[in-house]
Amino acid sequence: MLKNDRLDAWDRENFFHPSTHLAQHARGESPNRIVTGGNGVYIEDRNGTRLLDAFAGLYCVNVGYGRTEIADAIAEQAKELAYYHAYVGHGTEASITLAKMVMDRAPDHMSKVYFGLGGSDANETNVKLVWYYNNILGRPEKKKIISRWRGYHGSGLMTGSLTGLELFHKKFDLPLDTVLHTVAPDYFRRDDLSMSEADFVAHCASELEALIHREGADTIAAFIAEPALGTGGLVPPPAGYWETIQPILKRHDILLIADEVVSGFGRLGSMFGSAHYGLEPDFITIAKGLTSAYAPLSGSIVSDKVWKVLEEGTDEFGPIGHGWTYSAHPIGAAAGVANLELIDKLGLVGNARKTGAYFKAALEDAFTGHPNVGDIRGEGLLCAVEFVADKDSRTFFDPSKKVGAQVAAALLSEGVIGRAMPQGDILGFAPPLCLTEQEADTIVNAAKKAVDAVL
Amino acid sequence: MLKNDRLDAWDRENFFHPSTHLAQHARGESPNRIVTGGNGVYIEDRNGTRLLDAFAGLYCVNVGYGRTEIADAIAEQAKELAYYHAYVGHGTEASITLAKMVMDRAPDHMSKVYFGLGGSDANETNVKLVWYYNNILGRPEKKKIISRWRGYHGSGLMTGSLTGLELFHKKFDLPLDTVLHTVAPDYFRRDDLSMSEADFVAHCASELEALIHREGADTIAAFIAEPALGTGGLVPPPAGYWETIQPILKRHDILLIADEVVSGFGRLGSMFGSAHYGLEPDFITIAKGLTSAYAPLSGSIVSDKVWKVLEEGTDEFGPIGHGWTYSAHPIGAAAGVANLELIDKLGLVGNARKTGAYFKAALEDAFTGHPNVGDIRGEGLLCAVEFVADKDSRTFFDPSKKVGAQVAAALLSEGVIGRAMPQGDILGFAPPLCLTEQEADTIVNAAKKAVDAVL
Repeated sequence: MLKNDRLDAWDRENFFHPSTHLAQHARGESPNRIVTGGNGVYIEDRNGTRLLDAFAGLYCVNVGYGRTEIADAIAEQAKELAYYHAYVGHGTEASITLAKMVMDRAPDHMSKVYFGLGGSDANETNVKLVWYYNNILGRPEKKKIISRWRGYHGSGLMTGSLTGLELFHKKFDLPLDTVLHTVAPDYFRRDDLSMSEADFVAHCASELEALIHREGADTIAAFIAEPALGTGGLVPPPAGYWETIQPILKRHDILLIADEVVSGFGRLGSMFGSAHYGLEPDFITIAKGLTSAYAPLSGSIVSDKVWKVLEEGTDEFGPIGHGWTYSAHPIGAAAGVANLELIDKLGLVGNARKTGAYFKAALEDAFTGHPNVGDIRGEGLLCAVEFVADKDSRTFFDPSKKVGAQVAAALLSEGVIGRAMPQGDILGFAPPLCLTEQEADTIVNAAKKAVDAVL
Repeated sequence: MLKNDRLDAWDRENFFHPSTHLAQHARGESPNRIVTGGNGVYIEDRNGTRLLDAFAGLYCVNVGYGRTEIADAIAEQAKELAYYHAYVGHGTEASITLAKMVMDRAPDHMSKVYFGLGGSDANETNVKLVWYYNNILGRPEKKKIISRWRGYHGSGLMTGSLTGLELFHKKFDLPLDTVLHTVAPDYFRRDDLSMSEADFVAHCASELEALIHREGADTIAAFIAEPALGTGGLVPPPAGYWETIQPILKRHDILLIADEVVSGFGRLGSMFGSAHYGLEPDFITIAKGLTSAYAPLSGSIVSDKVWKVLEEGTDEFGPIGHGWTYSAHPIGAAAGVANLELIDKLGLVGNARKTGAYFKAALEDAFTGHPNVGDIRGEGLLCAVEFVADKDSRTFFDPSKKVGAQVAAALLSEGVIGRAMPQGDILGFAPPLCLTEQEADTIVNAAKKAVDAVL
């Protein structure tokens, strides 16, 4: 495994890692990990440590590691044609085929897919297109975007603004002022504990209505949301949420951007979260599961209604001034084609539903009644356990205790990767969709030991 | 070649292409091209048409098409480990090795490299880091970014704002108001024809000084610039430009972001444009040539001075809230390592210098004295010919005549891909850096025929 014994020094001297404590890393005070291989739900590092990755990278390796079908498709494309651009009507067999495959799977009212690289740039594309759309329709004032606290939509300037987590705003002057935030649809974290789930949904709706009223519907272009909250805590929506929110958006002519970077291609047990919860979005953001991360690729799927206006715009003003050099990159497209075929062939969407239910039940068996477990939740293979100082009064731990991070660290020492979600003591799970019941048991047993060790 | 006869229909029904007339494409009124392979400076489409790509994709395929060394490295990485994230100190042998290789090639005063996906997101990262930098230094008002008209820095909301080309602003409400633009360093297009090159440089400097004075130096964080203008017209800077501009920036404590997405890794005949023109940037943006586009990868190289402040920031506020799921993607990193090795092995930086000089001389031989050729310019393998209605009075053609686009179309019918640069009748060339003198002759002969056909 170890081909080069200077990697540790090279890493600390040269490599600026994302979402890392830069000073500690450079000084060698925090551990690094050099990952060398993976198979199924397992990864291996250069020290020979084998870990069950119950977060699928960053919930993206949906088909699991080491899939030769995708590796072969990438290899073949790299040999045949590694790159040509997609500007001005250019394409490759892979990119066109993938566009067709994505649209075959997307809800019927969707029209076309623009391919980008990652979720952040896909949401950036969406915001640009929303603004363009309202300019073409002669509504130059209708531009603000509503997002939810605890939503995650990227970490660029605009997309980090859409993200409703303080960690991504701090010291970056975000959010930008065209972005507004409304209530997080997180019933467990409701302010008023006496509220029923139905009360809470009504509260989310009335807060949204009030925000729209305060700002003026004619200034608000779009509402962006994950079907189920991701990085903000892995929270399925309360019952009736989408049925209540969507009519408000329609009434005020506010476009809906469904950010399906996490939920797209099976994570919740349906091909799309939109189908799962009955959303009718105008845009769908896709990334992660599109290629299972084997190569970078994202997408912005636009509806018939939006596409029609984009056509009007280019008829009037000429070619659209938007594009990345690597839009629809052939390597990503080839990976996407092989990946979507594999998801079908292995029945991974169904497995996410079935094994997801088994996994959640096992978490409930293990943790229900634990005095420090406030919530156990999940949908498909997106599950979380939230810890509290006191269950009955729902008293949270002092954040400085970092209980969530401690549990995740203890879990790692049991050989399982979970993720301590930011802004809460939340242990998150989003394993590859090929997870077996036996592997689910392994995760739950390790989690039980980890919780026992810390709490 | 033709594996699927429905690709044309699939393309028009499903695929939202970048920088394309969307309505014409969907209606089948504009041609599409499905590219199937490439070798050296040539690409081939599914109709069997073979074209000499004198623009290297979008000036990115620096090593040329069909390099098995890079395809093999991608294949091997895909088989070994297609993905793991780089958050919280994680890495792979490929990503760490590439970080080391990039820093070995970058100017000595640079410290670390953050890996992104494309040039747009790398510049987005740079702006975020510039703002963070000034927040950590306690200068919250010092945030505006100065760019130049005709600069190209991406097509996102912030990066499209930095771009100084109307095409990328129109109908997207750009530029955002934290971005200011100053004079394009394009001597040929100076307003006052009586100015000498030295006068023009002095004019650029005084306009920059006036802008800084007007806005207040304490509100201006950074100046972003390509060492030589790219999409804005492929224009090397006038003599003395950088020697005059840099001291102004230093005097006002304004950071310099050198956007080397086009110039990095050999295009101008030096490894970096910064070295070529004596720039001392605080940030260097890299993409395209980093992998020769064989896989998406970009980078933000930060200086020692900037890194020191980033360390202070994370010591005070914890891990930096910035990252993409696909930061330092293993496939891109493996492609980058193989690509940089190949650039060295084939001596492509030297070839860009040598064959670039030959190519420019051949363009001068062919077009000097032509009444409609106003300017022939170039540096390394980045060259352009600019057409005018009248040379002596430097009268431009009516833009609606699209003379540049006509010449590019005529060139294409001669079997050579050049690029009609936006906002001017400019035929641009940026071939792979492996170009031979014989291939340079082929391009120039075809360009001569194309110009004769149109003008």
